[in-house]
Amino acid sequence: MSINQNNHEHANIPPGDVRSIVLGFSGGLDTSFCVKYLGEDQGYDVHSIIVNTGGFSEDELKKIEEHAYKLGVKTHTTIDAVKGYYDRIIKYLVFGNVLKNNTYPLSVSAERLVQALHIADHVKAVGAKAVAHGSTGAGNDQVRFDMVFHIMIPEVEIITPIRDLKLSREEEIEYLKNKGVDMNFEKAAYSINKGLWGTSVGGKETLKSKGILPEEAWPTQVSKHDSEEVKLHFEKGELTAVNDKTFSHSSAAIQYLQTIAGAYGIGRDIHVGDTIIGIKGRVGFEAAAPMVILKAHHALEKHVLTKWQLSWKDNIANFYGNWLHEGQILDPVMRDIEAFLQSSQQNVTGDVFVQLMPYRFQIIGIESEHDLMNSKFGKYGEMNTGFTGEDVRGFSKIFGNQTAMYHFLNKA
Amino acid sequence: MSINQNNHEHANIPPGDVRSIVLGFSGGLDTSFCVKYLGEDQGYDVHSIIVNTGGFSEDELKKIEEHAYKLGVKTHTTIDAVKGYYDRIIKYLVFGNVLKNNTYPLSVSAERLVQALHIADHVKAVGAKAVAHGSTGAGNDQVRFDMVFHIMIPEVEIITPIRDLKLSREEEIEYLKNKGVDMNFEKAAYSINKGLWGTSVGGKETLKSKGILPEEAWPTQVSKHDSEEVKLHFEKGELTAVNDKTFSHSSAAIQYLQTIAGAYGIGRDIHVGDTIIGIKGRVGFEAAAPMVILKAHHALEKHVLTKWQLSWKDNIANFYGNWLHEGQILDPVMRDIEAFLQSSQQNVTGDVFVQLMPYRFQIIGIESEHDLMNSKFGKYGEMNTGFTGEDVRGFSKIFGNQTAMYHFLNKA
Amino acid sequence: MSINQNNHEHANIPPGDVRSIVLGFSGGLDTSFCVKYLGEDQGYDVHSIIVNTGGFSEDELKKIEEHAYKLGVKTHTTIDAVKGYYDRIIKYLVFGNVLKNNTYPLSVSAERLVQALHIADHVKAVGAKAVAHGSTGAGNDQVRFDMVFHIMIPEVEIITPIRDLKLSREEEIEYLKNKGVDMNFEKAAYSINKGLWGTSVGGKETLKSKGILPEEAWPTQVSKHDSEEVKLHFEKGELTAVNDKTFSHSSAAIQYLQTIAGAYGIGRDIHVGDTIIGIKGRVGFEAAAPMVILKAHHALEKHVLTKWQLSWKDNIANFYGNWLHEGQILDPVMRDIEAFLQSSQQNVTGDVFVQLMPYRFQIIGIESEHDLMNSKFGKYGEMNTGFTGEDVRGFSKIFGNQTAMYHFLNKA
Amino acid sequence: MSINQNNHEHANIPPGDVRSIVLGFSGGLDTSFCVKYLGEDQGYDVHSIIVNTGGFSEDELKKIEEHAYKLGVKTHTTIDAVKGYYDRIIKYLVFGNVLKNNTYPLSVSAERLVQALHIADHVKAVGAKAVAHGSTGAGNDQVRFDMVFHIMIPEVEIITPIRDLKLSREEEIEYLKNKGVDMNFEKAAYSINKGLWGTSVGGKETLKSKGILPEEAWPTQVSKHDSEEVKLHFEKGELTAVNDKTFSHSSAAIQYLQTIAGAYGIGRDIHVGDTIIGIKGRVGFEAAAPMVILKAHHALEKHVLTKWQLSWKDNIANFYGNWLHEGQILDPVMRDIEAFLQSSQQNVTGDVFVQLMPYRFQIIGIESEHDLMNSKFGKYGEMNTGFTGEDVRGFSKIFGNQTAMYHFLNKA
Repeated sequence: MSINQNNHEHANIPPGDVRSIVLGFSGGLDTSFCVKYLGEDQGYDVHSIIVNTGGFSEDELKKIEEHAYKLGVKTHTTIDAVKGYYDRIIKYLVFGNVLKNNTYPLSVSAERLVQALHIADHVKAVGAKAVAHGSTGAGNDQVRFDMVFHIMIPEVEIITPIRDLKLSREEEIEYLKNKGVDMNFEKAAYSINKGLWGTSVGGKETLKSKGILPEEAWPTQVSKHDSEEVKLHFEKGELTAVNDKTFSHSSAAIQYLQTIAGAYGIGRDIHVGDTIIGIKGRVGFEAAAPMVILKAHHALEKHVLTKWQLSWKDNIANFYGNWLHEGQILDPVMRDIEAFLQSSQQNVTGDVFVQLMPYRFQIIGIESEHDLMNSKFGKYGEMNTGFTGEDVRGFSKIFGNQTAMYHFLNKA
Repeated sequence: MSINQNNHEHANIPPGDVRSIVLGFSGGLDTSFCVKYLGEDQGYDVHSIIVNTGGFSEDELKKIEEHAYKLGVKTHTTIDAVKGYYDRIIKYLVFGNVLKNNTYPLSVSAERLVQALHIADHVKAVGAKAVAHGSTGAGNDQVRFDMVFHIMIPEVEIITPIRDLKLSREEEIEYLKNKGVDMNFEKAAYSINKGLWGTSVGGKETLKSKGILPEEAWPTQVSKHDSEEVKLHFEKGELTAVNDKTFSHSSAAIQYLQTIAGAYGIGRDIHVGDTIIGIKGRVGFEAAAPMVILKAHHALEKHVLTKWQLSWKDNIANFYGNWLHEGQILDPVMRDIEAFLQSSQQNVTGDVFVQLMPYRFQIIGIESEHDLMNSKFGKYGEMNTGFTGEDVRGFSKIFGNQTAMYHFLNKA
Repeated sequence: MSINQNNHEHANIPPGDVRSIVLGFSGGLDTSFCVKYLGEDQGYDVHSIIVNTGGFSEDELKKIEEHAYKLGVKTHTTIDAVKGYYDRIIKYLVFGNVLKNNTYPLSVSAERLVQALHIADHVKAVGAKAVAHGSTGAGNDQVRFDMVFHIMIPEVEIITPIRDLKLSREEEIEYLKNKGVDMNFEKAAYSINKGLWGTSVGGKETLKSKGILPEEAWPTQVSKHDSEEVKLHFEKGELTAVNDKTFSHSSAAIQYLQTIAGAYGIGRDIHVGDTIIGIKGRVGFEAAAPMVILKAHHALEKHVLTKWQLSWKDNIANFYGNWLHEGQILDPVMRDIEAFLQSSQQNVTGDVFVQLMPYRFQIIGIESEHDLMNSKFGKYGEMNTGFTGEDVRGFSKIFGNQTAMYHFLNKA
Repeated sequence: MSINQNNHEHANIPPGDVRSIVLGFSGGLDTSFCVKYLGEDQGYDVHSIIVNTGGFSEDELKKIEEHAYKLGVKTHTTIDAVKGYYDRIIKYLVFGNVLKNNTYPLSVSAERLVQALHIADHVKAVGAKAVAHGSTGAGNDQVRFDMVFHIMIPEVEIITPIRDLKLSREEEIEYLKNKGVDMNFEKAAYSINKGLWGTSVGGKETLKSKGILPEEAWPTQVSKHDSEEVKLHFEKGELTAVNDKTFSHSSAAIQYLQTIAGAYGIGRDIHVGDTIIGIKGRVGFEAAAPMVILKAHHALEKHVLTKWQLSWKDNIANFYGNWLHEGQILDPVMRDIEAFLQSSQQNVTGDVFVQLMPYRFQIIGIESEHDLMNSKFGKYGEMNTGFTGEDVRGFSKIFGNQTAMYHFLNKA
């Protein structure tokens, strides 16, 4: 799985040498520290890169670029990864109706992997012999970055200043101030990570096992109060139209639906989960479009797939989500599961009608030419022409036959 | 699995003979028809029985008994099955967080099996050579009754007048009127099935793939509008207290919680599912207490169980729910799964805090001495003492080792 | 899934009318009875068809055709289904290393489905309104034929004279003698079913829970006594060469290997299994080439697939085999699983070396450019360059982290 | 899961202090080096311990003890762990018919965990603050020991001289000779690990992907050439008698069967598997009694369990074996799976008849009062009384109903 969309040019990057390092850069305190530390203290030519998975505006990306150059990077690269992010990961999360622990759409987990893959590609393009990421030593991200780099660029050294130096926030700020860096050093009350597939929100309430985020902590405030109905059209499992407005790429449909559903405060929840490193964690998130899409898609599937397709999809997609979460996107078993999921979407085509309301939504129903509920063969609760009561009598006898023998033999 | 709670006496039942038949009786049109048809046309001594799984009041049961005797049954028996229903089935549905197709708490499926088991016991007590149920030929219930009877009382003849005669509603009414029966023949706009674990609601909207139930169709109307917080206490996976009010049996705790949560309109939804006989069906349901309990229980589990406990529970409980739904409660594999689920609840003890609001609720958090999130070993997002960043660096390398080899060998 | 290989012409078949019936025909007592019964007693134009899945020689097929016409069929059609049988089913059984209950290569189960699919195609080609099969009412085959016909040709009537009339063998013989039929009426001591993927053998020993087939019951007698080594070459999971002799189609490679391995008496065993209708059954079988291929293929996979590919393949292929056995080849979930299995074979290319001996064989080893055992990253039991002991120390700490927390919290 | 069988006394062990270290000791080169290195170079009081899981004779254990004291250990402890090994692990491997990758009975994997648990108990008993094991940095054992120690004695330092110092075999020998140690320094051509559940054999042939062990490498030579029949009796899944000779503990029955079956060369094979650390490895093993028991047990299960019991057991036991192999015996999910497996053995009682021959064996059949094959309900291939052909006709229609609808709707 190589990420190479030709969506950025490496023309001005100098030929790789041992002093070049590629740094995943967000513009925040930690990665700003890394630029200075790697560039000035360690003598590297720092090539910063930011991979946008849907969370940054053009304006924000421009400011981050300016900040990078001001910090002294040799080159800075911005990757628009939204479409590739959808094509490589989100699509399959939709196919599989994946919600980690039945709650969380796995937004951050998925983003990190796409970011790591783009960074690895950039390392190759630059010809760098080292790569850096700003993860701390206490979370999932370090494992995701480390693993993708070990796998895709095994000969490249991985440098993690934040994890290794274990500096406090205050120490980092002092260091940067001493280096003459002028940036916003204020700590936000809530740490936010935004992307195509949702926004995570961490704060003091999520550090404990009890407590929910206050209203003001949510990045998207509730501004719609009247109910509204939307029609989602799926083609072979992918969202292609919203209210008859069609999109050339599903990622654009997701973003459009987000503008409609987000203002209802839909899809807010707190996820309790297992980190890759074994500890439990809690995090808030808002994900209006993802939650609506996942539930609408699943509703459509309940009408067009067979019982065992639904059952196996649950089972296999659960693993897919968990293994993705653990950073294992490059295990070839993931390609095999994707082949299964893709095959299962053959008839997942139709409209789903959803009512949006403040903080919640409900599925109103579906329309599909593949709907197994509307068949000449039989209709639940009515007489039907495909079989008779006598057939069912025979079925029941045979269907319970072995258990009947079991109880006959083994009765007390 | 025998249902024998000594909660009814069979003292006055005459010795079994070939003319005795036991009839599952609800007091409705179909089973009223059965009494007359079996008793007067077929010459049976009809022993009617109603098994209350939490949907009937004392008063309703008394009226049903009177109606049965007026129709001419030889004996009528009322079974209070609520506790046994919980102990044999609901308990495991809670342990497994079982929601059919991620939506439906399986209330009707579970009730029918418990009813069938009690009826089979009654057949043995009466010594009858025949048993009757009033199911039609188009749904799940016929299979559930048929199968349990084939398994538990294989030598007993199963008679199903409604399925076999295929009479229309009008024909049944005319038949009963001709027999001089005086009862309410009006067809309700919505067919309701109420029990401990939820109430199903079917109507014209659920016969199609699109459409939701109108407000007035819901048996429990929304009468509370202010948010309220409840505290649920679980002991080894079972709900034992609500707001510090303790209950000697979990079924009573469920009923108490229902009085609190029901009035919010919580747990209303429409389930799209596969019948045992292969056709798709849709049904509305309201299940305030079940939904709150299932989500609260799962939240507690996310804090106290290990990652693979959570994962295996999902997988195995999904099958448990599906197989139960298909009437296979007597397959011994269900006992094996119950042993797994029981074992997994060892530490599922603690309080869960839930905020109730009109039409929805949210989990606020948990408190448990088994909470893996509060450990000296490490805390998500903070420095910890159990391991170092260097340990994680080694972990990442080994954790991705095989996939790294794979990509090294198989790269393009 | 339509079977339409254009490998037979329907040119001389009269336009379909209500008097035409297609009959699956083997030339044995039961289906000979069916020809006479359907043709002479029921007045049908009988179109017999035999689908060869590898068990019949040209000569045998010719004799069966002559017999059919002598019995009075209107047309007789011979289908050479060997390649299609492999392409549609056997290929996936190899990909999945499928052995029912870890023993039986599912030969008969798979054959019946392919036969039923060809017969259904023939019914459409003939334009018949009825189809007949000669299954009794006590085994799996009736369900397989019934189901494929219900699914593929739902409007066609299914007639099963043997099941419905419940005639004894003696009654059938008398009937045929009365009709002037002259054929071999002797009952073989063992009933044999031969095909590309193995030969089943039933006899008095397999009707009980104890007892093995006597030496003389095995269709292939042991004639080789000296050990021999064979080299099997797999391309993306398919056998394409044996001892460097290449084949244009895998089915030919299987047949060639059978000529080598069969004479060793390899792959003889007795399968104890669950019929679709719930009863247990025992059957002997010999399957030299299938067993050697399955084990060789699995050995190769152990070298080239990742841990989770191997694990998921086991899980999903187990279901595939069971569901196939139960006649459910047309459930679309089977296509989804096939997509998974196909994807997993990407690198299953290489040579496997096998030593053949009387009654047994052993895998000597494999050679593959995708062999994960021969990597620069590390070698089992030797020092390696991809990671250090210190990395493993960190790995162990993190890998057991959650369980350590669990035991710390929950210790007695 | 604590291992505390009171089968050894710690009376003479001095009160724990910071200079005490417990060392897992086998008497071989590596652990002999550890005694000298830890005791003389590092100044520890070395408390050596050997945990016998069935591979050592009394005499061998005595010699190992003498060797330990000669090397200078403070105390040496011998644990007879055979019964506990069976009760805690082997029992469940039999219940689950566990063969890693369908080949390997997991002998070494299981032994290491039991050894680690006993060593951890000994550390507590001694009051030591450090523990040492002699694993190298390239295999599975280091992870198993590390993990069990991290989990059971997290505050104790783990010291691994062989892994950390990375000495060659020659350097270790020179070191020991310099310390005046006199022992057999010759390297065996094959490294052997023997225990109750099998003997592993590694050598130059197993370091490559191709090649089998020569006849002389197998520890047990083939000395029986005439076929022999044995009868194994299982009680609730456990082997309790062989040829009517009963045993008070299943471990003794296993050892007795080994004396009978071992001399046939049964159960020799080569396992290709995934190490915990991601690399592939190959190892030879002989396991006559384990292979016969596992196949006999499975044969009995095929007769007495239902279809879904067999299917779920496969699935869940596969994971159990893999997770055990990876050292995760202490994850509580393993207790949940054991509860499932225990429950499934309720009726696994009866006799299994097995024919032993040189290099192979075959199951002749079973006798059990729980045998579902011998029931009044129906007999495979014969007419039966529990159901009719008409019932099966109805069954087939319903069983394929949804797939029929699917194909009707979605046909080309």
